[in-house]
Parts: sequence; C-alpha cells; structure tokens
Amino acid sequence: MNITYIIAMQAEAEPFIEHFGVQEVPDFFSPLPCRLYRADIAVTSGEPVRLNIVCNGQQHGSDLVGCEAASVATLAAIEKLHPDIVINSGTCGAFRADGADIARVYIGNSCMFHDRRVPGDDRWGTQALGNYPVWSGAETLAHTLGLDMAKVTTGSSLDMQPCDLQIIRENGGRLKDMEGAAVAFVCSLMGVPVMFVKSVTDLCDGGAETYEEFSRNLSKACRALKEVNIRVIDYIATHRLA
Amino acid sequence: MNITYIIAMQAEAEPFIEHFGVQEVPDFFSPLPCRLYRADIAVTSGEPVRLNIVCNGQQHGSDLVGCEAASVATLAAIEKLHPDIVINSGTCGAFRADGADIARVYIGNSCMFHDRRVPGDDRWGTQALGNYPVWSGAETLAHTLGLDMAKVTTGSSLDMQPCDLQIIRENGGRLKDMEGAAVAFVCSLMGVPVMFVKSVTDLCDGGAETYEEFSRNLSKACRALKEVNIRVIDYIATHRLA
Repeated sequence: MNITYIIAMQAEAEPFIEHFGVQEVPDFFSPLPCRLYRADIAVTSGEPVRLNIVCNGQQHGSDLVGCEAASVATLAAIEKLHPDIVINSGTCGAFRADGADIARVYIGNSCMFHDRRVPGDDRWGTQALGNYPVWSGAETLAHTLGLDMAKVTTGSSLDMQPCDLQIIRENGGRLKDMEGAAVAFVCSLMGVPVMFVKSVTDLCDGGAETYEEFSRNLSKACRALKEVNIRVIDYIATHRLA
Repeated sequence: MNITYIIAMQAEAEPFIEHFGVQEVPDFFSPLPCRLYRADIAVTSGEPVRLNIVCNGQQHGSDLVGCEAASVATLAAIEKLHPDIVINSGTCGAFRADGADIARVYIGNSCMFHDRRVPGDDRWGTQALGNYPVWSGAETLAHTLGLDMAKVTTGSSLDMQPCDLQIIRENGGRLKDMEGAAVAFVCSLMGVPVMFVKSVTDLCDGGAETYEEFSRNLSKACRALKEVNIRVIDYIATHRLA
C-alpha cells in the first residue's frame, strides 16, 4: 500500500518527517523542485506501508504555495509514485462563527475553488467551482478517529476579498486553503482517491491580520497536524482503503 | 525542431488545426483529458518542423480553462513531447486605454499573475506575482513580424475585481488571460523557453459585459490568432531559436 502526501510548505511537513524518520530521495523529481521523502513504516496491523511525502520545493527563495505548484506536484507524484491514495495535508484559515479554533484539525468532506469566477452557462460555473470528489472512506475515518469534517475551499490568495467570501458562504466552504482543490482536480483527472487533513492557523473572522496570525500559529498547527496524520496513516493502512 | 502549442479551448485551436491539417493522436495523454494534434510541416526555409498542438480537453462538459488545467497540460506536454519551445496561444482581454482593439494580436514580452495576493516579506510577494521569463527571441520576432508586444497578466476569473485591476495597473499588465503565467511557471521549472501569442476578445474598460463580448468576438479573434501563428511558426523554424 502506497500513501502519498502532498504538502506545500516544508514547515508543514517537518514534524511529520521527523516523526517517521523518512529519508529524502534527492533529485527524484528533477528538474522540478518538488522534494520526495520516503519510508516503509510499520502500522498497528497489516503489512508495512510505503509512505511518500512530497513537498512542493522552492522558487524565488520561498516554498512554492498556491494552486499551480500544487497541480504540478500532484501530477508529478501520481505519475512517478503511483499512490493508492493522495492526502493533501496542511494549514488553513477557518471561521470562528463555525466553531473553529487555532490548531484544530479537520478532515475534508468536499472541496471547491472560491476564486475562479467564470460566468456564462451552468457548465462554466460548475467547472469553475470544481467540487471534486473526496475519498469515499473519509467520513468513516473521521467518525472513527473522532475528527470533525468540513468543506475545503481553495484560492490563490492569503487574504480574502468580499467576492471570495460571498462564494465561500454561498457554497458552504469552511476550511480556506491555497492548494486543496487543485490537488483534488488533478486526482480527479488521474482517477486517484484524495483526502484532506487540515489544521487551522488563522481565523478569517477573528479580526487579526492574516499573515501575522498565520506565522504565529504555524508551528502549533503543524504539530497538531502531525499527531492526526499518524492516526490517519494507521487507520488507512489497517483498513486498506476498503 | 519541435514547437509545442498549449491552447486551452478547442475553439481557439480549431482554425489552426484546420489550416495545418494536423491529426489527432488519440489518448496520447490518457488518463488526462488533454488532446494532442501533431504534424510535420514544411516551412519557408530549413527542415520540416514537428508541430504539436495540445488542448486542455474537457471536464464537467466544458473545455478546461484556468491555471490548474494549464499547469497540468504544460507539464504533461513537456514531459511527453520534449519541445524546443512552448507557445501559449489564446484569447485575452485588453484595455482600450492602452490602444487595444478586438482581434488585435500581441506577442507577450513578460508575464505575471494578478490574483495571487500573498502579503508578508518580499519573497512571498515576488513568488505570488511570478514574473517568469519569456523566450529571449520574442522581441526580435515581434519586431520582424510587425507585431506589438505587451505584458500578459493571468488570473483564474473571467471578470475583474478592483483588487485585480490594482495589481494589473501597478505592475504594467496589459493582456488579461486565464492561463499564460501558469504555462510560464511550469516552463520556468522545466527550463523550457516559452512565448505568448494573444488575440483580444474583449475590452476590459470598454463597458460591455465580458462574457457576452468574449462569446461574440471569439471566432474573429481566433481567426486572427491563426494568421499570426502561421507566421510565428515560419519565423521560429527559419531562425531555429538562434
């Protein structure tokens, strides 16, 4: 069984990489800057699991974030690693009004884009929103592990404009990130199941400045993410995507 | 020599496909929905040129547009076709205030994103804008063929919000499209030269409703695009990217 994580920022992956002692496979995706960390890990029951952690890598001196980098990393990972499931794990914004808290970890039950506004007939609007399928076992996983579920809503910006908020509210988005729907889009094209594990770094309606709040909470949110991912991997490996 | 076009919509590619009599290579990118049309064509001087035209294909019943689909098509095309140059050809919005007209065709001299707002330090802002390099021969090509040049500015929406316009104006964007910078981003990662050929379908400051204007002018803009691309291919093939 092959579980492949797509993680945008090195900081989001680091606690995770340390915990599993995964080793980097240098230049695996060259010339792409994506980085591969790989290990065969033991789980509670069943055979060892091949764990791949793919980070987007850097350009212009910073970790590549956003939907284009996520699309590239996901396609390259699927083509070269042939995963049984792709898990997009990372940080997100969420809404205090929905009961969210910093470093709370959610499983995505659906996903969409909130910043692709293409009017016209229904087909364009449908394509623009995305609403790609999520792995059918995610709900049972979340229930078993006692985790909340919510809809991932993806855009290319860290801030939120009124037009973004309107689309998020009209379509039930709750976990605002910068990669999720792009990862799910590529998985939908390639026919690979996808799941989301998202940890809250900032409250979109909390009144704080997003970038400062994100930076302040990043480390705490990523540690929480690691703890949940350890349980997620164990669950999936034990239940073999059944 | 291998020239590979990345074209989002079938309608943008059609006049071009008809002119060169290129043949579809079915399922070349399967399971991706991207479509490959291929021909070896004669040019004014020099050896025949391998012409690949890659269209994004469809999902949800409409042609895939936008930056994620462009990222996927560009990466798949580079990996499977090994082009000497990638040309992103398509339609765009432009500004009457800049002297633009419907069906006028431009060569891109630079490119950026206008809807990836990531504040923080300079590195994040630099990455978000993109400003990926364009093929160094584009300026001489445009001069020789008597074509105007302008900066391509890319976003995931057909409309334009005030926050988009502000970034476009502050950074000299003139040709507003939905794929260009994503194509250039992937080319920058893979080390492949990229060029833009863009034909105007709508005037962003013309007062008309964008989708209606786009639909009305699509066919005219695509015919103009074809005429220029015939000359572009001949020029590049003759000058061998020198």
